Amino acid sequence: MLNFEFKNPTKVFFGRGEIEKLSTQLPKDKKILLLFGGGSVKNNGVYDQIKKALGTHNYLEFWGIPANPEYEVLMSALDIIKKEKIGYLLAVGGGSVIDGTKYLAAAALYDGDPWEILKKPVRTSEKEALPFATVLTLPATGSEMNSGYVISRKETQEKLSSGGPGLFPEFSILDPEVVRSIPKRQVANGICDAYVHVLEQYMTFPTTATLQERFMESVLKTLQEVAPKVLAEVFDYDAAANFMWCCTLALNGLLQKGVPTDWAVHAMGHELTAYHGIDHARTLAIISPSHYRYNFEAKKQKLAQYAENVWGITSGDTEEKAREAIEKLEEFYHSLGIKTKLSEYTHQYKDTASKVRAAFLSRNWQGLGEHKNLGPDDAYKIVEMSY
Amino acid sequence: MLNFEFKNPTKVFFGRGEIEKLSTQLPKDKKILLLFGGGSVKNNGVYDQIKKALGTHNYLEFWGIPANPEYEVLMSALDIIKKEKIGYLLAVGGGSVIDGTKYLAAAALYDGDPWEILKKPVRTSEKEALPFATVLTLPATGSEMNSGYVISRKETQEKLSSGGPGLFPEFSILDPEVVRSIPKRQVANGICDAYVHVLEQYMTFPTTATLQERFMESVLKTLQEVAPKVLAEVFDYDAAANFMWCCTLALNGLLQKGVPTDWAVHAMGHELTAYHGIDHARTLAIISPSHYRYNFEAKKQKLAQYAENVWGITSGDTEEKAREAIEKLEEFYHSLGIKTKLSEYTHQYKDTASKVRAAFLSRNWQGLGEHKNLGPDDAYKIVEMSY
Repeated sequence: MLNFEFKNPTKVFFGRGEIEKLSTQLPKDKKILLLFGGGSVKNNGVYDQIKKALGTHNYLEFWGIPANPEYEVLMSALDIIKKEKIGYLLAVGGGSVIDGTKYLAAAALYDGDPWEILKKPVRTSEKEALPFATVLTLPATGSEMNSGYVISRKETQEKLSSGGPGLFPEFSILDPEVVRSIPKRQVANGICDAYVHVLEQYMTFPTTATLQERFMESVLKTLQEVAPKVLAEVFDYDAAANFMWCCTLALNGLLQKGVPTDWAVHAMGHELTAYHGIDHARTLAIISPSHYRYNFEAKKQKLAQYAENVWGITSGDTEEKAREAIEKLEEFYHSLGIKTKLSEYTHQYKDTASKVRAAFLSRNWQGLGEHKNLGPDDAYKIVEMSY
Repeated sequence: MLNFEFKNPTKVFFGRGEIEKLSTQLPKDKKILLLFGGGSVKNNGVYDQIKKALGTHNYLEFWGIPANPEYEVLMSALDIIKKEKIGYLLAVGGGSVIDGTKYLAAAALYDGDPWEILKKPVRTSEKEALPFATVLTLPATGSEMNSGYVISRKETQEKLSSGGPGLFPEFSILDPEVVRSIPKRQVANGICDAYVHVLEQYMTFPTTATLQERFMESVLKTLQEVAPKVLAEVFDYDAAANFMWCCTLALNGLLQKGVPTDWAVHAMGHELTAYHGIDHARTLAIISPSHYRYNFEAKKQKLAQYAENVWGITSGDTEEKAREAIEKLEEFYHSLGIKTKLSEYTHQYKDTASKVRAAFLSRNWQGLGEHKNLGPDDAYKIVEMSY
């Protein structure tokens, strides 16, 4: 097991009706900015619950943070934060609103061009960020209980990430009832996103961190089990609750402690979103099977372990199990209604591998994957395999 | 899944050599009291590493906190804390030293008779305790990453518990190398203690909290796997690391979120320690099989799930699997060298059931177990079954 440090101070309020806790958890002595995405929370009752809980708190609202939170939009919010002397942020949304809020929490106290925070990138330590909290309306990214974030900038076709110990939400409210009204396409994205978060921490090589590997296999199996239930027409509270808690624990830092991690699927996937606007989760489904096939020799033992422990495949040798594992993974994506080939999303795909290679070259990438040995040419081939 | 709140702000430093982090993590502007048990840390190199890391920090040492941390001894430490204006505590030891340190952290700022904290009991909120950290030398209780503690008082034959959100360690250092020199008897106790911590959160009835149940089964299976390795003569670092991390996660609060819990085994076990001085972990091995047999109807479904998912027992009906589960549990204790009958520990056992009943009656116990329906008479019968 590798040495590690772990600290996650976010307080979670989990369950039906917990949104009312805002009334006691939010500060009374600070001006609060509520940050929202589109207007879905006005239709599902979340906005009404929040308004009621906020009562006489001093707050303003900012609407319109889009998926892949956009730098230009966030700069408008930053103007308001500075002009109105906002002292506390409340993100109400999914990963995009929460990620955008984290960036704003850092940018509000940053002395310099806010884009530097992402471009260098700058890690935000404690006391270098505005305090903030979240009300999660879309389980997927785990952003509600970690300190990382990803921001997009259309102007430069960039999607960059940063984070730091100052960017854990003070608290997050997770009410599985919100899943009731999420469009099924987004539920599928959420399942896929959380699933690949675990794969990025798991699909490397067999390690001695037995407990962490079992925890990861537990999240994968539970996501597989609840997927058809949360995608069904009839709402199932307990399936929604497991889905939500799986998404949070998939990326709250605990699983990856003491183990090697990959994250190459995300690095390549972010480029597909930047060029083609494909939903983040779907880019992961496009890239991951090709990534595992391209790196089959390096990953086949862990793929076989995944086949056995997650899919119950007991026949065949290591290579056969490993190959079946990749097929099972693709079938799982398809069962969510998610396509796994880039050409199924866009006709303009042919330059993508070249663009990814060029982007990685331009950033002096130090090597991707658990061995840090995948370069721009490897990324070219993996992306090409995913056409 | 039940509603829950979860927050655990303790920072963990895990791995070989991490003790040196004390040099940067401990405050320079406060007088520190180091708290130790016996002298074992002087023989295994831990004390030397700590002295080196502390360098020019301003600190005093207090030695001699015994197993089942004793109120009278802790009152001597409290005198020193007050007289010397101590501002920070560092526990170096296992669960007893850490539990004792938590009680001292609370008692140092408590305005009144310190025994009240345990007798009422008083929950210690943030800012009502001295800050403290730990260096774990004996994996077992999970106290290094939670906010609870148990204190014994010989004079009154009481063993009482309290806690509160102010009593999480600021940080804890977990170096699996310490396991190398722990006497095997104490390693066995540690495995048993952590194992029953999980059982107390798990062995109730099947719930809809699928992810948590899988996490708990993961800890149980991992403890079973590493047990022979950490009890072997040759030191196995990775087995020790899994053992250590299992013990911490068994009781850091995460597993029990959203599920019903039991804790009746601990309630009865504490009495056996108070009357007979039996090691805490061993009292759990004495009580748990009888507890599960006595409450067989209420627990048989979960016992069968445990048989299947933890022991791989697939044949037989629910009752058969459940019965085999209890036998497997007893065999597991025996494999650790731990006896499971009270009469194997003391000849003076015959009054024990009566004493437990009287103690529970005197404390107006509200009912034990996940259904809170076990009274003093049930405790009498369970303890008697364990003779």
